[in-house]
Amino acid sequence: MKIAVLGTGVTKFGEIWEKSLADLAKEAARQALDDANIEISDIDAIFIANMLAGEIENQVHLGSLIGEELGFNGPAIRIEGACASGGMAVRNAVLSLLSGEYRRILVIGVEKMTDYQSDQIGEALMAAADEEERVAGLTFPSLFALMAKVYMDKYKIKRSDLAQVSVKNHFHASLNPKAQFPFQITIEQVLQSPMVADPLHLFDCSPISDGASALVLANMNYVSQVYPCPATIIASAQSSDTLSLTKRKDLTRLISVEKAAKKAYQTASIGPKDIDFVEVHDCFTIAEIMALEALGFYQQGEGWQGAVKKETYLEGKLPVNLSGGLKAFGHPVGATGVKQVVEIADQLRDRAGKRQTSKARIGLAENIGGAGGSAVIHILTN
Amino acid sequence: MKIAVLGTGVTKFGEIWEKSLADLAKEAARQALDDANIEISDIDAIFIANMLAGEIENQVHLGSLIGEELGFNGPAIRIEGACASGGMAVRNAVLSLLSGEYRRILVIGVEKMTDYQSDQIGEALMAAADEEERVAGLTFPSLFALMAKVYMDKYKIKRSDLAQVSVKNHFHASLNPKAQFPFQITIEQVLQSPMVADPLHLFDCSPISDGASALVLANMNYVSQVYPCPATIIASAQSSDTLSLTKRKDLTRLISVEKAAKKAYQTASIGPKDIDFVEVHDCFTIAEIMALEALGFYQQGEGWQGAVKKETYLEGKLPVNLSGGLKAFGHPVGATGVKQVVEIADQLRDRAGKRQTSKARIGLAENIGGAGGSAVIHILTN
Repeated sequence: MKIAVLGTGVTKFGEIWEKSLADLAKEAARQALDDANIEISDIDAIFIANMLAGEIENQVHLGSLIGEELGFNGPAIRIEGACASGGMAVRNAVLSLLSGEYRRILVIGVEKMTDYQSDQIGEALMAAADEEERVAGLTFPSLFALMAKVYMDKYKIKRSDLAQVSVKNHFHASLNPKAQFPFQITIEQVLQSPMVADPLHLFDCSPISDGASALVLANMNYVSQVYPCPATIIASAQSSDTLSLTKRKDLTRLISVEKAAKKAYQTASIGPKDIDFVEVHDCFTIAEIMALEALGFYQQGEGWQGAVKKETYLEGKLPVNLSGGLKAFGHPVGATGVKQVVEIADQLRDRAGKRQTSKARIGLAENIGGAGGSAVIHILTN
Repeated sequence: MKIAVLGTGVTKFGEIWEKSLADLAKEAARQALDDANIEISDIDAIFIANMLAGEIENQVHLGSLIGEELGFNGPAIRIEGACASGGMAVRNAVLSLLSGEYRRILVIGVEKMTDYQSDQIGEALMAAADEEERVAGLTFPSLFALMAKVYMDKYKIKRSDLAQVSVKNHFHASLNPKAQFPFQITIEQVLQSPMVADPLHLFDCSPISDGASALVLANMNYVSQVYPCPATIIASAQSSDTLSLTKRKDLTRLISVEKAAKKAYQTASIGPKDIDFVEVHDCFTIAEIMALEALGFYQQGEGWQGAVKKETYLEGKLPVNLSGGLKAFGHPVGATGVKQVVEIADQLRDRAGKRQTSKARIGLAENIGGAGGSAVIHILTN
């Protein structure tokens, strides 16, 4: 598998009240097209990742809407898989390019969330979860809090071990001007922030955000010889687990991520040791820890050591979430999975500014939907 | 292009209050798997078409939800493009199969609409339209009524010429026990039914429906020699037009359909004359007339002659909407585009019962989103 990343784009993430969903999508798309040095007329299809526009803005059919905004009249579709919508859109663009039907695809991830009350958004987000758990009053923080509780009991870790993940991701975000929270925080600030769902404090949780991200992907047969093109997708894998936590045997493992990782490593003919840096889906601090284990970087029960021992910092042996992650870069749901691939590609092309890692040879992006009901993984190299 | 249809499934369409969205999806999926004589474990991915579950049931992430219900833990995604969601799911399954990444894909189209007030549904459906037109008070019946008005003025046709389309589709539905309205109606009944949006009466409009449809599609490399497999997809094409009617130059043409048709005919190396029967997107009677012109079966301004001259009836020269169409079979939005391909495949495999056409050699399915903002076309043969 080999698909070229010709261009990347990402807006500032945060509370962007002056821009609409279409404005954000266009801004990211224009950046990616300019970066690829092509026009919209060179694009054969648009894949849009979005979770909530139907529920909170009463707007679906985003393919046609955003296509019209961009002056595009070819095939345009929306792909949705909760918080994994972005990863799924990238993956399905990759597969469609491999079919030979399209030469170049514009992938856009976009979400507009901060114009609404947070309880509205909280309820809308639970649309990604199991109905029984929703009706029982669970929310995403409480689902991940359950996972964190079991994990902490089983592996005897402290709340501050969770908090270290957030401190690290804020440190990386402090080097990224597009981040929603481009500043550092301390362990004490995390532990003293309001409790959301025991053991998760407010600063263990990723925020509600507006933002968009975009990629121009191309079949290698249509990449001209002179194009520098230093980033390519060499593996794409997706897997599922039960939507409901109640049907899972072990709350401390992300089985969907384990399965997708196995496939991705097989496709790329590499293993976890070959990966130089990663973007993982840290919707909550516990999620980053479990992801690092599911991806094979740490043994079961040891993923928390990454941030504590500073191994997952910019200068560590395996930099994790150099963008700032969902926690500190922000988490406009549909944009997240696309943004992760943007960050990997930008690092591989030596364009990551102050947060550039010297290790950028092979990077991996892990994106999950719900509480791990879906997982998508991409591996890129330069 | 050649993709095998290994199995088909479709539930009864209508007001199915005793079954949930997941129940309907499972029922259609089981039919398709049984028809293909394979197990869910033989499936590599699930593609789900659905428009409204997020808005009216607060449930997204249907890939994970329905995957869990079916005991499936591979990649599962939802594809949405308003009323063209079904066609888009089929198309993207086709492309993913052509990539070689998957051997067999289960495509499910499903929508659950009748548990809600019709004004709720009417508002939710407008999520597929342009925001300005929505805010101006337009609804889908009134958007298509505008198109019908212009068409009637330009080509001097009568209201009864529109009504004939509905009469024909009800006649076909009377031969289809799974149809929502399996009975005949008269021209007088259409013309005397309540006015919805001048010139469209209630019986010019497709209904609100519950229902699901499913297909098992396979890469030809994974179809065993002994499998009978008499239906194959030989062309798949998608195109777009502006979402808003106000930006179009000619309200009497479906430009997205014209463009998609051109591509589909090119792919299959055939022309309109080679098509034996079709399923078109008759969300309103005018839409069938415009579709027949856009597909090249009739000249501009003459598509209405199909039903009036009985050319598009079961025994006519080009049977159209043998299933009963959206008007009389029903229109559970996400299910529709998948159901059209099910009908074409069932006709090609001589399984259409009383509505079986003797002409079933090459069939075409045309599915649109919004007021033609998106269009998807598939051509199948046996």
